[in-house]
Amino acid sequence: MLSGPPEASQNSFRIEYDTFGELKVPNDKYYGAQTVRSMMNFKIGGVTERMPIPVIKAFGILKRAAAEVNQDYGLDPKIATAIMKAADEVAEGKLNDHFPLVVWQTGSGTQTNMNVNEVISNRAIEMLGCELGSKKPVHPNDHVNKSQSSNDTFPTAMHIAAAIEVHEVLLPGLQKLHDALSAKSKEFAQIIKIGRTHTQDAVPLTLGQEFSGYVQQVQYAMVRIKATMPRMYELAAGGTAVGTGLNTRIGFAEKVAAKVAALTGLPFVTAPNKFEALAAHDALVELSGAMNTTACSLMKIANDIRFLGSGPRSGLGELILPENEPGSSIMPGKVNPTQCEAMTMVAAQVMGNHVAVTVGGSNGHFELNVFKPMMIKNVLHSARLLGDASVSFTENCVVGIQANTERINKLMNESLMLVTALNPHIGYDKAAKIAKTAHKNGSTLKETAIELGYLTAEQFDEWVKPKDMLGPK
Amino acid sequence: MLSGPPEASQNSFRIEYDTFGELKVPNDKYYGAQTVRSMMNFKIGGVTERMPIPVIKAFGILKRAAAEVNQDYGLDPKIATAIMKAADEVAEGKLNDHFPLVVWQTGSGTQTNMNVNEVISNRAIEMLGCELGSKKPVHPNDHVNKSQSSNDTFPTAMHIAAAIEVHEVLLPGLQKLHDALSAKSKEFAQIIKIGRTHTQDAVPLTLGQEFSGYVQQVQYAMVRIKATMPRMYELAAGGTAVGTGLNTRIGFAEKVAAKVAALTGLPFVTAPNKFEALAAHDALVELSGAMNTTACSLMKIANDIRFLGSGPRSGLGELILPENEPGSSIMPGKVNPTQCEAMTMVAAQVMGNHVAVTVGGSNGHFELNVFKPMMIKNVLHSARLLGDASVSFTENCVVGIQANTERINKLMNESLMLVTALNPHIGYDKAAKIAKTAHKNGSTLKETAIELGYLTAEQFDEWVKPKDMLGPK
Amino acid sequence: MLSGPPEASQNSFRIEYDTFGELKVPNDKYYGAQTVRSMMNFKIGGVTERMPIPVIKAFGILKRAAAEVNQDYGLDPKIATAIMKAADEVAEGKLNDHFPLVVWQTGSGTQTNMNVNEVISNRAIEMLGCELGSKKPVHPNDHVNKSQSSNDTFPTAMHIAAAIEVHEVLLPGLQKLHDALSAKSKEFAQIIKIGRTHTQDAVPLTLGQEFSGYVQQVQYAMVRIKATMPRMYELAAGGTAVGTGLNTRIGFAEKVAAKVAALTGLPFVTAPNKFEALAAHDALVELSGAMNTTACSLMKIANDIRFLGSGPRSGLGELILPENEPGSSIMPGKVNPTQCEAMTMVAAQVMGNHVAVTVGGSNGHFELNVFKPMMIKNVLHSARLLGDASVSFTENCVVGIQANTERINKLMNESLMLVTALNPHIGYDKAAKIAKTAHKNGSTLKETAIELGYLTAEQFDEWVKPKDMLGPK
Amino acid sequence: MLSGPPEASQNSFRIEYDTFGELKVPNDKYYGAQTVRSMMNFKIGGVTERMPIPVIKAFGILKRAAAEVNQDYGLDPKIATAIMKAADEVAEGKLNDHFPLVVWQTGSGTQTNMNVNEVISNRAIEMLGCELGSKKPVHPNDHVNKSQSSNDTFPTAMHIAAAIEVHEVLLPGLQKLHDALSAKSKEFAQIIKIGRTHTQDAVPLTLGQEFSGYVQQVQYAMVRIKATMPRMYELAAGGTAVGTGLNTRIGFAEKVAAKVAALTGLPFVTAPNKFEALAAHDALVELSGAMNTTACSLMKIANDIRFLGSGPRSGLGELILPENEPGSSIMPGKVNPTQCEAMTMVAAQVMGNHVAVTVGGSNGHFELNVFKPMMIKNVLHSARLLGDASVSFTENCVVGIQANTERINKLMNESLMLVTALNPHIGYDKAAKIAKTAHKNGSTLKETAIELGYLTAEQFDEWVKPKDMLGPK
Repeated sequence: MLSGPPEASQNSFRIEYDTFGELKVPNDKYYGAQTVRSMMNFKIGGVTERMPIPVIKAFGILKRAAAEVNQDYGLDPKIATAIMKAADEVAEGKLNDHFPLVVWQTGSGTQTNMNVNEVISNRAIEMLGCELGSKKPVHPNDHVNKSQSSNDTFPTAMHIAAAIEVHEVLLPGLQKLHDALSAKSKEFAQIIKIGRTHTQDAVPLTLGQEFSGYVQQVQYAMVRIKATMPRMYELAAGGTAVGTGLNTRIGFAEKVAAKVAALTGLPFVTAPNKFEALAAHDALVELSGAMNTTACSLMKIANDIRFLGSGPRSGLGELILPENEPGSSIMPGKVNPTQCEAMTMVAAQVMGNHVAVTVGGSNGHFELNVFKPMMIKNVLHSARLLGDASVSFTENCVVGIQANTERINKLMNESLMLVTALNPHIGYDKAAKIAKTAHKNGSTLKETAIELGYLTAEQFDEWVKPKDMLGPK
Repeated sequence: MLSGPPEASQNSFRIEYDTFGELKVPNDKYYGAQTVRSMMNFKIGGVTERMPIPVIKAFGILKRAAAEVNQDYGLDPKIATAIMKAADEVAEGKLNDHFPLVVWQTGSGTQTNMNVNEVISNRAIEMLGCELGSKKPVHPNDHVNKSQSSNDTFPTAMHIAAAIEVHEVLLPGLQKLHDALSAKSKEFAQIIKIGRTHTQDAVPLTLGQEFSGYVQQVQYAMVRIKATMPRMYELAAGGTAVGTGLNTRIGFAEKVAAKVAALTGLPFVTAPNKFEALAAHDALVELSGAMNTTACSLMKIANDIRFLGSGPRSGLGELILPENEPGSSIMPGKVNPTQCEAMTMVAAQVMGNHVAVTVGGSNGHFELNVFKPMMIKNVLHSARLLGDASVSFTENCVVGIQANTERINKLMNESLMLVTALNPHIGYDKAAKIAKTAHKNGSTLKETAIELGYLTAEQFDEWVKPKDMLGPK
Repeated sequence: MLSGPPEASQNSFRIEYDTFGELKVPNDKYYGAQTVRSMMNFKIGGVTERMPIPVIKAFGILKRAAAEVNQDYGLDPKIATAIMKAADEVAEGKLNDHFPLVVWQTGSGTQTNMNVNEVISNRAIEMLGCELGSKKPVHPNDHVNKSQSSNDTFPTAMHIAAAIEVHEVLLPGLQKLHDALSAKSKEFAQIIKIGRTHTQDAVPLTLGQEFSGYVQQVQYAMVRIKATMPRMYELAAGGTAVGTGLNTRIGFAEKVAAKVAALTGLPFVTAPNKFEALAAHDALVELSGAMNTTACSLMKIANDIRFLGSGPRSGLGELILPENEPGSSIMPGKVNPTQCEAMTMVAAQVMGNHVAVTVGGSNGHFELNVFKPMMIKNVLHSARLLGDASVSFTENCVVGIQANTERINKLMNESLMLVTALNPHIGYDKAAKIAKTAHKNGSTLKETAIELGYLTAEQFDEWVKPKDMLGPK
Repeated sequence: MLSGPPEASQNSFRIEYDTFGELKVPNDKYYGAQTVRSMMNFKIGGVTERMPIPVIKAFGILKRAAAEVNQDYGLDPKIATAIMKAADEVAEGKLNDHFPLVVWQTGSGTQTNMNVNEVISNRAIEMLGCELGSKKPVHPNDHVNKSQSSNDTFPTAMHIAAAIEVHEVLLPGLQKLHDALSAKSKEFAQIIKIGRTHTQDAVPLTLGQEFSGYVQQVQYAMVRIKATMPRMYELAAGGTAVGTGLNTRIGFAEKVAAKVAALTGLPFVTAPNKFEALAAHDALVELSGAMNTTACSLMKIANDIRFLGSGPRSGLGELILPENEPGSSIMPGKVNPTQCEAMTMVAAQVMGNHVAVTVGGSNGHFELNVFKPMMIKNVLHSARLLGDASVSFTENCVVGIQANTERINKLMNESLMLVTALNPHIGYDKAAKIAKTAHKNGSTLKETAIELGYLTAEQFDEWVKPKDMLGPK
């Protein structure tokens, strides 16, 4: 049997302690007693349920910023520097293996904050050549968590993580999709096709016009998401335990926000009201709502594309979608619109995530909302899925879409509602007679019109011009 | 201008009082001070938001049953009889105009319970020839509400109302739809058509088989709904204020449930645990969940039917749906699948209602859930909409669906995946060659097979028989 | 028995017709054959399910605007003027009884558009002294619906209705709530109370600070809702059947939007992309999302207030809520927080409505989303409920909230976490010893501190000052 | 820096191919070309988004069963045996590292079915001493997938996985919670406490009665979940591509279901209608609905427990919850109800997952629902979270809950509504006078009653007995 990678040895431990007593901590991990205790108390869901890495990285950024500001306020530069270096490693994802805690822990995220404090403390201690687990000279609470509480750091990390994911994954993904759809809209600008309302035949439009609707949807998706950012840029840091800022110094909150802004390049500011920033997470519900709207848009677009590309013989067949994988070995030509399927599944997931975020957001009590880890998990999940799926859908589907112009022309020319163009020439009643007769006999409008003696073939060709039906006059 | 019906005069009032003081009550109404007070305090949403009539009727049934049992336990028969008569009028819907309160009141439904008590009291007083509003000889609290609390009567009325709506509207509607789909499944049993997976062409099945899937879905919808009824048949009556049954007599709860069962013909029983029956409404969430599943089923069916009926020229066109209303005057033959649209809108609403019920159901505290009116409103809304829409969809769409056999045959015979049938005779590779070539050239399988020299026209006709592809061998 | 208002006589009918044939129309109604046909085909849900009046009024505004513009483009001024007058009556709600159609109709709202066209046509005919139902001289399609399609008028009416409801009901309600909370926040600025995190005792803050969080939430709710308006102000009018604007004149769309803006005082513009405006209703999903966030905020606030006001003896008891209705006659002092209950039920409903809107919004196909009536119904429902409930909650609860300062002081002073203030003076370990001992013995911090000999009564009073714990230093 | 485990070398590859061409496959993996191709085409979400292991294991069971039945129908026993052995390894989780595909792939799960076919094929080939990737002598399609299609195997694996997770994780977790709550209900049977309705003081009940409501909720949760299983036990296997069973033998479907039943010990049967089984996944929506109801129950219970345990000084304080982790170092006695928080977060997630499942379940088209991977992911997620959280909540919270009898007695005895007991002795009016006066003065009922001269201390003690207020008489 193939041999997998050897498991990390977990045979060697050191002893660390918290106020509840001693615990064994694996020697190859930087985390400490409180992390181990959380692992013991919250065996819920397994490794896929771990706190999302973007939250961990955001904590790295926050802890680094706080150390800088604490140094300004008097923290020993040696300690501050060590914290900053260790925090940078967290922010860069170098220590991801040291964050084993699941989302389903305390609703304040305290244990993840302590996990971060412990990892940074031990890594800083190591850098300074001291003993892991000794809490000296860098104490997880007194130094790494200085002027902070889980109650303000966790929401701060939530906002940082969400804003970064929006800017690094979600918006770029949507922009890519937007651009590809826009290019297709221009490419298809001259292709006149039948419109469909109520899923039924309707008057014509161009394929480019049809795609322009998708372009508009995706453009507005970006507008909507960006419109939520002002609240997301507000950071709770400096509110500490209940929002009053107890145990912080005047100016700490503002300086931390400024440092985080500098570190991330995003315009973070300190939240004008820290009570709201701890007790409610409306900003996450709001962003989730914008992503929910985006999910509706993308489901619509993906549905249209798979139906327009349905066939090859018995569907609508107006679009030819890229073939990416083997279809059934016995059905050549069968293109499964798999990218559309991934996209619509993502859309459904985002709608569900949004309800989870909503339920969590509505159930805060007093000075603290304790659905924090669940809320940020779902928000990040939605952002990542939408962003990634947009890229995948663009690269593996949209850019390769071709118009089946032969099919499009055939359907458009057979369409009975082109008869509309005859109204000004022969009147509504005769036009209707032509259409009804054609429908009944399965014949073309032209054949029928001539057969009924209402006009000549030449007249029909002159008067019935789909390209004149594409806009106001 | 056309004259509408004259408004009821509201100029004349009588004075009634509650423990907060006196209030003017319209002379043409049976309700009393507490109802008026609720109208003053809860101006939310307007007349469309009134407590659903099925709840009012259920209260009529309950109050009648309670009066009977109270008489058994010693209530003056004259009073009891008057209450029963008045309660019967409530149950029969004769006094609907006397229940003006909206759903958005106290979360226990206390004000509606008092509305009922007041109306029954005054109507009973009127029957006994006494003075409205005097509370004599039939007191709303002491007599009509005897051995009861809002906290147990409102959930009892919720369960009665929901169970009746399920049996009188929802299940009959689904049964009607089931039977119509089943008849169509049999009618279409011999029509072989192309299958579609991933919205793409696939191997054939019969139209009857396709419809048999819908039949199964609707049958299971009924099974699922019925499976929730055992918890719905449990009545909270007898639990009074917190579930202990304080101020009731031993046996009261059981007797009331038995009376309600006798009055409704449904197997109501007393809830085995009254604490659960007041503090949680899981039974409503459960029923709502079954209706949510039903909504999924019906949305799928309605979507299929509108897509299969899309056209007339440029859609799938396999079904011909009944024409019920004028389509566009310029597009003869345009059938808008309006019944499908009403059904899918209903399905979406039911999914939304379900979330409202879920949020309410999860937020009970201690001895009382106070989302009662909202929860029952949504449950009844879903039941009614699903039941009514099923009837409308059946009568105005399903029963009139015709198969467009010409179109079905054409699509099926052109289908490339019939090539599958050649595998045993000429091998997979040659079969694939035929299919790929046909797809590329837009030619038929038969033409291509002959052209490639793999078989004769006779062989093709003998081997490629769609009707042999409809089941295991 | 009390006599209700006499029913309008429905014994007299006139005959009207549509392309499907003749139908009896009640003589006292302005609607025509297509409305009657819809009533026959969609018996779903009953009168409470009628198309919301704000949609009807919005249609009145739109039809008036369109008539003006059509006159500019050549429509006979006599006809145009009659349409405008009749449309004004619709817009003013004078003809509400003439719109009997339910939401559960065709998903494009075509039948309601025709209902409007018929009512305006007949009312205009009546004004001109001609025969109802004759369609002369004002034809419902040719004149009232001129340059329009259901496919663009219904979404236009949706946007107008939603924007008006937001500005007339939702935002004013929120503003009122905001102002009342803000006043309370100031009133309570000096009241120091215990904070609660994880529902557990925490460090102090002022009651004013606590309320300031609510103020912030409601303020942001308004910001969020307003942020969605730019998309709502975009009108589909001029897109006609599929978005191309077929059968309109160049400039029609822009002029109609300008007229609607003038009539409503809201900055409506023509939608930059009519394909998106017909095929997707992301703007409704977006607004619904903002209301969903608002619902979360309001549920949090209402929950806090009812818990802080719980008691009178066995709850938290920090707030005294207004008594609005009789509580139980045997439990004086029992204030049921009924306004909180109405508010939280509304919040749950809005969350559910949002899911319905989301499902509908995601299921549009090709050139038309056909979940229109359901979507706008839910959006208007949410806006109205949130607006009304905010007013009710404000007037009947918030403005009358009093702080129970005695109770607040007692809880705050007994709180063990005031020990924090001793850390700088006697060190963490001794402080912890005090707190642990006090907790174990149920004694006060002061007693315990003195008993343990760590400090004097005077020192305790000097060092432990809650008012110094309310902000950064 | 601590060294992590060495990464598996991915430098060595073999070449495999599918109908689209050749691809490099890592030498240390059993999967083949189609798996690699899916990894290239669906870069969505990363490793946490991989197909859940229970689905993979279920596929192992199914493939083993199918191989057995195929052998009965003539498959070479050597090949069949090798498949069975390899499939067993998959079922046992020994090959988990070989299933890298994410959920966000084709909506039929085809790529995961092929991943399974490839892994089993290559592992079987290896066992038989032949060349990996040669497809000889065990072909992934011809042998491992014999008589199967992704379209029937994936839903079969979904049902197997869901049923197993329900029986191995969800129901045992709920049973454990039920038993612990039941034990507490008995333990607390004699502790009389104040009831709370509307979060306000109400008449008394025992703490055991209060917990009995929770017991009932959890018991019914199990009943509800079990009630959905009959539909979950129905397997699609044998339906192949569209439900007809093309390319299977008569009896194959029944035999496979029987084998799966034997292998799992669960009563699986073949689905009576394969069209429904492929095209709809109502059974998953149904189970999700039952879990949604369960989530409501658990949120209610966890909320109650954290509020009843709130304090230590300024909350309700009736329950003493186990201390599991360090609270704040400065706030001794602060127990954060972290297990309640994990549970309520899980509940919110399950409600969200349910909406995702609902949206997916409603959007199937024609012969295939293509939201399969998303749906099963969410169902399994909910089942696992609810099961795990129930165990965690039980072990780390419920079993250790103690009643704070001193506090409970104090609150109960101070309660004003005990006055109810005096009604029969001194009449309602005097009783009310006592209560109102006591409330106003903040005095006890007894003091007030004596002070008012209505009764003696002895009479009060004799008449006011909370233990007589706990049930009907």
